Amino acid sequence: MSNLKCPGFTAAGISCGIKKDNLKDLGLIVSKSACISTAVFTKNKTVAAPVIVSKKHIESKRCQVVIVNSGNANCATGIKGIEAAQLIAEKTANIFKIKKELVQVASTGVIGVRLPVENILSNIKKTKNSLSDDFDDFNSAIMTTDKFKKNILLEERIDDKKVTVLAIAKGAGMIRPDMATMLCYVMTDAEIPEENISDILKKSVDKSFNKISVDGDTSTNDTVLLMANGKSLVSINSEKRIKQFQNIMDKALIFLAREIVRDGEGSTKVVTIRAINTKSEKDAKKIVDTIAHSNLVKTALFGEDPNWGRIIAAAGRSGAEIDPYKTDIYFEDICLMRQGMGLGEKAETKALSIMKKEAFEIIIDLNAGQYKDYIVTSDLSYEYVKINADYRT
Amino acid sequence: MSNLKCPGFTAAGISCGIKKDNLKDLGLIVSKSACISTAVFTKNKTVAAPVIVSKKHIESKRCQVVIVNSGNANCATGIKGIEAAQLIAEKTANIFKIKKELVQVASTGVIGVRLPVENILSNIKKTKNSLSDDFDDFNSAIMTTDKFKKNILLEERIDDKKVTVLAIAKGAGMIRPDMATMLCYVMTDAEIPEENISDILKKSVDKSFNKISVDGDTSTNDTVLLMANGKSLVSINSEKRIKQFQNIMDKALIFLAREIVRDGEGSTKVVTIRAINTKSEKDAKKIVDTIAHSNLVKTALFGEDPNWGRIIAAAGRSGAEIDPYKTDIYFEDICLMRQGMGLGEKAETKALSIMKKEAFEIIIDLNAGQYKDYIVTSDLSYEYVKINADYRT
Repeated sequence: MSNLKCPGFTAAGISCGIKKDNLKDLGLIVSKSACISTAVFTKNKTVAAPVIVSKKHIESKRCQVVIVNSGNANCATGIKGIEAAQLIAEKTANIFKIKKELVQVASTGVIGVRLPVENILSNIKKTKNSLSDDFDDFNSAIMTTDKFKKNILLEERIDDKKVTVLAIAKGAGMIRPDMATMLCYVMTDAEIPEENISDILKKSVDKSFNKISVDGDTSTNDTVLLMANGKSLVSINSEKRIKQFQNIMDKALIFLAREIVRDGEGSTKVVTIRAINTKSEKDAKKIVDTIAHSNLVKTALFGEDPNWGRIIAAAGRSGAEIDPYKTDIYFEDICLMRQGMGLGEKAETKALSIMKKEAFEIIIDLNAGQYKDYIVTSDLSYEYVKINADYRT
Repeated sequence: MSNLKCPGFTAAGISCGIKKDNLKDLGLIVSKSACISTAVFTKNKTVAAPVIVSKKHIESKRCQVVIVNSGNANCATGIKGIEAAQLIAEKTANIFKIKKELVQVASTGVIGVRLPVENILSNIKKTKNSLSDDFDDFNSAIMTTDKFKKNILLEERIDDKKVTVLAIAKGAGMIRPDMATMLCYVMTDAEIPEENISDILKKSVDKSFNKISVDGDTSTNDTVLLMANGKSLVSINSEKRIKQFQNIMDKALIFLAREIVRDGEGSTKVVTIRAINTKSEKDAKKIVDTIAHSNLVKTALFGEDPNWGRIIAAAGRSGAEIDPYKTDIYFEDICLMRQGMGLGEKAETKALSIMKKEAFEIIIDLNAGQYKDYIVTSDLSYEYVKINADYRT
């Protein structure tokens, strides 16, 4: 048992036989009453069946029950996949005696294999029977290649009243800006007006999950769902309170996003890549994106080789306006390249000790303008290849 | 000794001490007379110093001597790097008593380390003294992470007269459309009019080096140079002869491009990714590009896992217009996914035997239009990570 609780919400996680070895693979979140809710989904055009169904349901801005299976993504499974997701939502709605629009359904795992929908349908009642106010089993039930659980519980004060935010996430590979194979469920007892909730979630996602990248692939199933049941009676209805609540949300999601990078498949480091003083915002984004996705840079990070040459080469092909002869590269406060020229072994030796840290920053200064951007990424290790070459066997 | 010869050209390769273990690292190509010449260079904005110098020289459309070092790319070396490349060109011109514009200079190897220019300057005469009509030593001298030599000698007839094309290439990693860490020198005794030569080279490069990708990174030093000395007295001056010569060039460069993928760092397979029946040419390009650069796809290729789910997921995030429910995926003639639905284990077992081949094709059929494109790529193995994590140590 953990201490992952949020007033008014219960959760469960059991094994329904999709994963091997009786691992937990079916989870439920249940709110006592329908919550004001909003969600952000993957932008991948190959979208999984449950996302198609959940997207439609969330148009109501309401949600009461979430059902998630792991071990199978129910993606690229044709029309039958959509029918399966619909069936799951309908049966869940029947069991809880609510409208199907109040059910969010999600799947995560291998793509392209028919979902064993019977395993799920025949186990919803059993999952319901194991509901408790603790989210630990639910957290287990949504994991795939995750090496550790990712969650955060924040109990903070807004105008002297306690507000709880509980956020549970899964995800390790296929993470790229615009979210990828990750699921994140945020429960709060704050009372969030319908007209504010989407904006709050979107802003937090932009600062967190949209700033991380593990391997550049994006998933077909990504979902971040925010459910607000209002139990605390703290209404997020003034500019000041929105700001306060936004800060809590940002804190939770930025923490979970970094946790996902830290657990990046085979990842040994969390590296923040910053581009500063670029000519435009787009340039900054292009540069950090290209550096963070360069396999040459990522293997050098793994090998603890301060190979800034690969960094400037990646920036050069990013499509951004860049004059290498005006550009500087830093590992934290150590300058390795100034105006396109390497500063030699002494600087690299200092950089080496920075690279031994679990988390550090690389800064590329274009000296060309006043824009900036960043991305949080991981390295590329033997382990990454091993995990992904053998995933289905 | 090999049989790599082209009338009117001599070459040499020696060790000047940049590489360890006395490996050959300085090469020369010398034509008896100035050749009509043209070159294609990297599009990376972080361009190496020798490329800056050679680009300027080739504006004359003439070249007589090529000097290449391996072991150091002379890139991201600041103004001093440019001065070094200029010095090398000038000294070479002096030694051969030609104008410096007739010298092409190139470097390949690690980025960001000062070029030991003295090693080169003091060894040009020695290299000159070992010139012979055989290109084998030159081929050795331009290699970096290459596991094998890449060259092709074609002796073909144009209007019943023999024309020779000898092409020598290096390159293994950092290969992406638009050429990357690769050098390719093409010598011919054909007589190619100045007004035709650039077009011929560009067309061949588009069909060969611009269709391959190993790791998505592009280099700062890439160069393909074509030198025509006219010794065969066969003038490529009619539409018919241009077509005939173009075919020979295509054959040579397509062969070498595939050789580079076959030698891709840690590569175990050469895989052609084709998108067909797309709505636009751009869509086709986006799709093959995204699939070929997906680490999830590339590790599955290495693991011999016919994981078509990752292929459709990559296509989905490519930015192309795609309806997964209308899309089919084939491994050669085996259909694995039809209209967005997997065809099951039997199909996958058949695909497995295709994946065991050294070279095969993956086809994604959008059923949406009449355009197509392809790219030749390799897999992502432990070895890739090993080579690139430890490159500088």
